[in-house]
Amino acid sequence: MSSPSSTRQWILQNQAVDLPILEGPDATFKLIHKNLPALQDGQVKLKSLYLSNDPAQRGWIQKGVLADRLYVPPVEEGAPMRAGGIGEVIETRASSLPKGTLVFASVSWSEYAVLNAADCSALQNVPGVPVTAFLGSLGSSGLTAYYGLIDIAKTSKTDVVVVSGAAGAVGSMVVQIAKHMVGCKRVIGIAGSDDKCRWAKSLGADECLNYKSNSFTQDLIKATHGYADVYFDNVGGDILDLVLTRMKRFGRIAACGAIASYNDSQPRGLRNWFEVVSNRLEIKGFIVLDVMSKFPEMRGKLVEALAQGKIKVAEEHETLVKTPFEAIPKTWMMLFEGANTGKLVTKIEA
Amino acid sequence: MSSPSSTRQWILQNQAVDLPILEGPDATFKLIHKNLPALQDGQVKLKSLYLSNDPAQRGWIQKGVLADRLYVPPVEEGAPMRAGGIGEVIETRASSLPKGTLVFASVSWSEYAVLNAADCSALQNVPGVPVTAFLGSLGSSGLTAYYGLIDIAKTSKTDVVVVSGAAGAVGSMVVQIAKHMVGCKRVIGIAGSDDKCRWAKSLGADECLNYKSNSFTQDLIKATHGYADVYFDNVGGDILDLVLTRMKRFGRIAACGAIASYNDSQPRGLRNWFEVVSNRLEIKGFIVLDVMSKFPEMRGKLVEALAQGKIKVAEEHETLVKTPFEAIPKTWMMLFEGANTGKLVTKIEA
Repeated sequence: MSSPSSTRQWILQNQAVDLPILEGPDATFKLIHKNLPALQDGQVKLKSLYLSNDPAQRGWIQKGVLADRLYVPPVEEGAPMRAGGIGEVIETRASSLPKGTLVFASVSWSEYAVLNAADCSALQNVPGVPVTAFLGSLGSSGLTAYYGLIDIAKTSKTDVVVVSGAAGAVGSMVVQIAKHMVGCKRVIGIAGSDDKCRWAKSLGADECLNYKSNSFTQDLIKATHGYADVYFDNVGGDILDLVLTRMKRFGRIAACGAIASYNDSQPRGLRNWFEVVSNRLEIKGFIVLDVMSKFPEMRGKLVEALAQGKIKVAEEHETLVKTPFEAIPKTWMMLFEGANTGKLVTKIEA
Repeated sequence: MSSPSSTRQWILQNQAVDLPILEGPDATFKLIHKNLPALQDGQVKLKSLYLSNDPAQRGWIQKGVLADRLYVPPVEEGAPMRAGGIGEVIETRASSLPKGTLVFASVSWSEYAVLNAADCSALQNVPGVPVTAFLGSLGSSGLTAYYGLIDIAKTSKTDVVVVSGAAGAVGSMVVQIAKHMVGCKRVIGIAGSDDKCRWAKSLGADECLNYKSNSFTQDLIKATHGYADVYFDNVGGDILDLVLTRMKRFGRIAACGAIASYNDSQPRGLRNWFEVVSNRLEIKGFIVLDVMSKFPEMRGKLVEALAQGKIKVAEEHETLVKTPFEAIPKTWMMLFEGANTGKLVTKIEA
């Protein structure tokens, strides 16, 4: 049976200013059909099975974003929406990737894709670990958590660590790594619901605070009595502004993300900046893609910790959403509704 | 002739919320008379000649500031307003400080003060250098500039440096040190008037931009074509927010001060925070008092550069304001009016 010669694909129709728009003439994305190129030597044809949903993707489609201010090129209007994902090789002209192989690749929001084999990584088989973990806990999310905590914030046992987005793909791994791999003195999570907080605590957080609670400010002051050494920041915005006032002198902040402002062209802004001066805070922004050469080593540490039972990587550590191809943008938008615990993964329905 | 047994003194009457208030029942400061304690062994009586005016003092009198969030204790209501200054020893029970010695000390806003000799530093005589330079260029301002550039931002020859408050006490030394001691590729000053900019350029800035100009944003974009490696930030606020968008990938920010927000309890806030993540910026707050043990070494470097003609420390590098004792707060407030070029020094009129 020959493989498809065309594909459905979501392209970026309009760059986004505030919250992306799902419907109508101003819709951010557009579903098209297009022909696939003929397979060349060294190429494979993939069928997309799972898509990775990442807050960072929002930055790539920001209206007016300058290419040289982003760590990857922005997605141009008219181009396929960029996304990592897991695909199955359905046709091959590359001996390294036989038919049936599952690979991680930048598949974009396409049902089928033709890619160079060199741009695809065959997935490792780790017993007891779902294949989708290579999008989350053992993929860029877990590696981001490890790199930010260990290399950027230089977290050690004696540290009190605060992490926002503690039930998210990155944050849930930060909690586990800080508590069970580093052995931090105290890990305080911040998340957006009581359920998420319970989950973060089950992963190892000594305490987890619901930022939607009316008593959040007081709760955080209480939880950080004596102040925090490290803040792993996934959200930016008002929570960062508050945490600045709760950092210990010479405290370190790993600036990983700022989801609070991704859909807001007029954020309220940070007002407690002077804390950075008066308490000599050190802040480092980072992007895990800068250290791709260290991925195998870092992933090895995570797999080792997994084997030792220190961390857990299971299906319940992700939010897997079965999604018809037509609904891919809608599932992606769940990121900004706080709808996921752990990695938000799109499972494309056949 | 016996020395005075009482003194005039400005105390903090009301902690400040926004801009300090000079007159009326809500005035921030209050002039009182009080008796001086009898001199003990090891003590000296000083007559205050010059006062150091520093934006940092504003932080010490902020309403509601928490003692453990400041790098020195806040000034309590009812206490003398803290200030460094130069005093002359007019009575002594310390052999190390004979009568007539000029010293640097925390004299506060007092006409006379009784202090332990151990808390006073006799001033070095450097030929051609006015004694007031020990409050500014060779004092905490110059040391702050040196420490921030060299130790905090690790500035090197290949760097393009932006400095705000470039005509201020710290900024004017940053310009000189960056250009003439480090030999930076390019030094771009930001200041509040065309006159200040001319002065910063005479000190070595390759370019200096007036932030009050309507074309400032465009001017800065043009001046930082290719982006900046180092930002020495004395002002915070909107200028910092803009400079965040002009930093090179992996750029370093030495966060020294935030005068833009010191008198504003509701600052607009930083909105371009995501630049920190996407361009992996490193930001370090610092306070030069953390490295007091290095003062002699650092001051030595400045004095050496002075002897080699690399930097200049002259009377025109400070704004010396002859001030009747009654007007000390008024002169201090000039800091927040952008009235000074170089260090703002109060010369107390006899």
